[in-house]
Amino acid sequence: MEPLEELKAFLRFQSISTQPEHAPDLTSCAEWLRNKLMAIGLNAKVHATSGSPVVVASTPRDPAKRTVLIYGHYDVQPPDPLQGWTTPPFEPRVEAGRIYARGAADNKGQILAHILGVAETLGEKGSLPVNVIFLIEGEEEIGSPNLADFLRAHKEDLACDLVAISDTAMAPGNQPALTYALRGIAAMELLVRGPARDLHSGLFGGAVANPATVLARLLASLHDAEGRVLIPGFYDAVRPLEPWERDAAADLEKASGGDAAIKELAGVSELVGEKGFTTIERIGARPTAEVNGIGGGYQGEGTKTVLPKEAFAKLTFRLVADQDPEVILTAAEEYLRSQTPPGVLLEVVTGHSGDAYQSDPHSPDGLAARKALAGAFGAEPLLLRDGGSIPILATLKEILGVDSYLLGLANPDSRIHSPDENMLIENFLGGIRMNRILLEELGKAG
Amino acid sequence: MEPLEELKAFLRFQSISTQPEHAPDLTSCAEWLRNKLMAIGLNAKVHATSGSPVVVASTPRDPAKRTVLIYGHYDVQPPDPLQGWTTPPFEPRVEAGRIYARGAADNKGQILAHILGVAETLGEKGSLPVNVIFLIEGEEEIGSPNLADFLRAHKEDLACDLVAISDTAMAPGNQPALTYALRGIAAMELLVRGPARDLHSGLFGGAVANPATVLARLLASLHDAEGRVLIPGFYDAVRPLEPWERDAAADLEKASGGDAAIKELAGVSELVGEKGFTTIERIGARPTAEVNGIGGGYQGEGTKTVLPKEAFAKLTFRLVADQDPEVILTAAEEYLRSQTPPGVLLEVVTGHSGDAYQSDPHSPDGLAARKALAGAFGAEPLLLRDGGSIPILATLKEILGVDSYLLGLANPDSRIHSPDENMLIENFLGGIRMNRILLEELGKAG
Repeated sequence: MEPLEELKAFLRFQSISTQPEHAPDLTSCAEWLRNKLMAIGLNAKVHATSGSPVVVASTPRDPAKRTVLIYGHYDVQPPDPLQGWTTPPFEPRVEAGRIYARGAADNKGQILAHILGVAETLGEKGSLPVNVIFLIEGEEEIGSPNLADFLRAHKEDLACDLVAISDTAMAPGNQPALTYALRGIAAMELLVRGPARDLHSGLFGGAVANPATVLARLLASLHDAEGRVLIPGFYDAVRPLEPWERDAAADLEKASGGDAAIKELAGVSELVGEKGFTTIERIGARPTAEVNGIGGGYQGEGTKTVLPKEAFAKLTFRLVADQDPEVILTAAEEYLRSQTPPGVLLEVVTGHSGDAYQSDPHSPDGLAARKALAGAFGAEPLLLRDGGSIPILATLKEILGVDSYLLGLANPDSRIHSPDENMLIENFLGGIRMNRILLEELGKAG
Repeated sequence: MEPLEELKAFLRFQSISTQPEHAPDLTSCAEWLRNKLMAIGLNAKVHATSGSPVVVASTPRDPAKRTVLIYGHYDVQPPDPLQGWTTPPFEPRVEAGRIYARGAADNKGQILAHILGVAETLGEKGSLPVNVIFLIEGEEEIGSPNLADFLRAHKEDLACDLVAISDTAMAPGNQPALTYALRGIAAMELLVRGPARDLHSGLFGGAVANPATVLARLLASLHDAEGRVLIPGFYDAVRPLEPWERDAAADLEKASGGDAAIKELAGVSELVGEKGFTTIERIGARPTAEVNGIGGGYQGEGTKTVLPKEAFAKLTFRLVADQDPEVILTAAEEYLRSQTPPGVLLEVVTGHSGDAYQSDPHSPDGLAARKALAGAFGAEPLLLRDGGSIPILATLKEILGVDSYLLGLANPDSRIHSPDENMLIENFLGGIRMNRILLEELGKAG
């Protein structure tokens, strides 16, 4: 089958890990992957977990060769708001050199490029220059709750010299880039509870604390007017930028169209953020506190004059090395409680979290990765810090004891997590070439 | 039919004026009322408007008698949240001396008591001591957008000496009360628009203004930490409390169990509010800015790491004499715009509004109203300022040139606008007696 047809088949699975009703779709998707990996000549298996299954596939282990673990995920974000999509999110559409579907870039298109690269090399040469292990999980979008246990239980089978991951984006302008840092994450939900039920805002307004107002004041207390997070100690563990990193950020800015390009990508007329840092540094190298959703009271058409009984917010903190998510969550909760006025109850539920990650782009494997990107895409890769989070990187380092190298294949305008997510077909096909060079170079780097 | 069965029939109509799909239910309800009013011997008609119809019914006009216009409304608030109801909101249930349904107290039970009072007097005596006009509209809960035009068009037919209204509550402890002031209202919806679409909070967080955060900061800017509204000029036109009013508020507090009773009604452990005023004064005599609903971003199960493209809030201001709703809305919009940071767009949509109202409880008609309440319920009525709004009072004064007297029949724990709205059956039946005494006393007061 043509690579693009393979990708379409992969994209049709509604493998949404955050929605329990899609568990059967996740299982079907994992089985499809297993069959695909077996068909290209690997030894592949679907492993059950207490959540979504994990797919593992490998070449026979030749002790004379280095071993590369290629990590990816087959689960995707929910597609809503559905009305934002030009065509249905799980019916892949090809138009003007792009393929559109939920998961096209994050992460199905990227992991499939590696699979097809391995398939091509095996097809042509019968063997690979390194031992390869594919580890493809189904819970990345919910924070990989079962992967650490899985890694521990299969530590011997998964032993490797390094991890290669394509789950990030190229630099603006779709220039190749090696990502050497990702932000960590810590999620928290706030529920402000007031009266026992929604009250008439006329009969009680002015005498009873309004949970929506209290919630607003709590959220407003998270930042100063310049966008700096006000939680005490929030910045204490932040690793300062090295001079070469500020140079790399400046190179990236020059090569990428700078703020104008980011504005266009985001669809905003103005960028804002913490003083003392460029936009690229704000996104990649500085921690944030973002509100992902708020709700409370009457949200329907027209007016309903209630004083709502409760209001909630979903928050995520993006963290950088060496912030500890647990420390941040504790400090945030303590701070928010200290800001909560009398008359309401604040409930705090902490969600998934993951450490930030950094690897060294100047190591032998880092240099091999850069050669693969240069060879496949015809330009020296820029060095990136990515604002997103792949918490599993810290876990891989801790349990397998190896570094991860991030060779992002997504086009920067891939709209991941948004309606009309897409992947440039040239990036997908380039990813196949990149995998072939990468395995070759890593075979020599050991 | 028994009064309670009549009320059940009235309550079964889903006459929700804020939801366009219920237009047929409003029409059916108006026709039911017309038929009922004709059946008791009045000349009754359903008048179409560009919204819900208005029902008008009257006795033949005897020029030797005074004329009393009795105003009410047959529309109701939406019943959501539906899961809060013990039994379905439009299937009336009688239990332990109460009737439960949306509209039981606001306003179907109260207006029907007047209709049944007139029916009893006519049945017993064949005529009334005054001319009576019933004016029962179907758009009170959405701010009566068509009633002023209707009043102007039917000014001659509706000419009267005073207006009597039962659309408020008794004093805490279910003690009879004459309401001499109501708060005005002004509604406003805020929409903060940021990026063109929901963004990945990792890839853009820290560099793009978050509309949910901006909205929270705007809502937080509405009040100081003590609950005083910070909009410049907000309090400028507020009429100060007269000494007799502070005495009446203190009487009410003594007679009603004070803050403990209000806490219990609201289901809160603590009351909060503006300094320098008692709880009763805060609710009845002071203006407020309340958030009725907020929404934006991901509100589903689990986490979705988006930076939302927009967030909204629904606000209502409760106003007191002599605040002008238009002036307040303009000042609020100007203030909120001045607080809006760069990087987002603030859209403001103003909704319905209505002036606050005050009448004189010491006038001859005021004294007649107090006698009717005392006679029907066996205790001297307290004098109340109600925190709710009946904007039509100011309109009635302006167009018909007469004062309105508010003889509230709802029990204070009637949960109007909330799940399990109910009316004490003794209040409903007492309302029938009250109407009979009222018309008698008003006949003498002229």
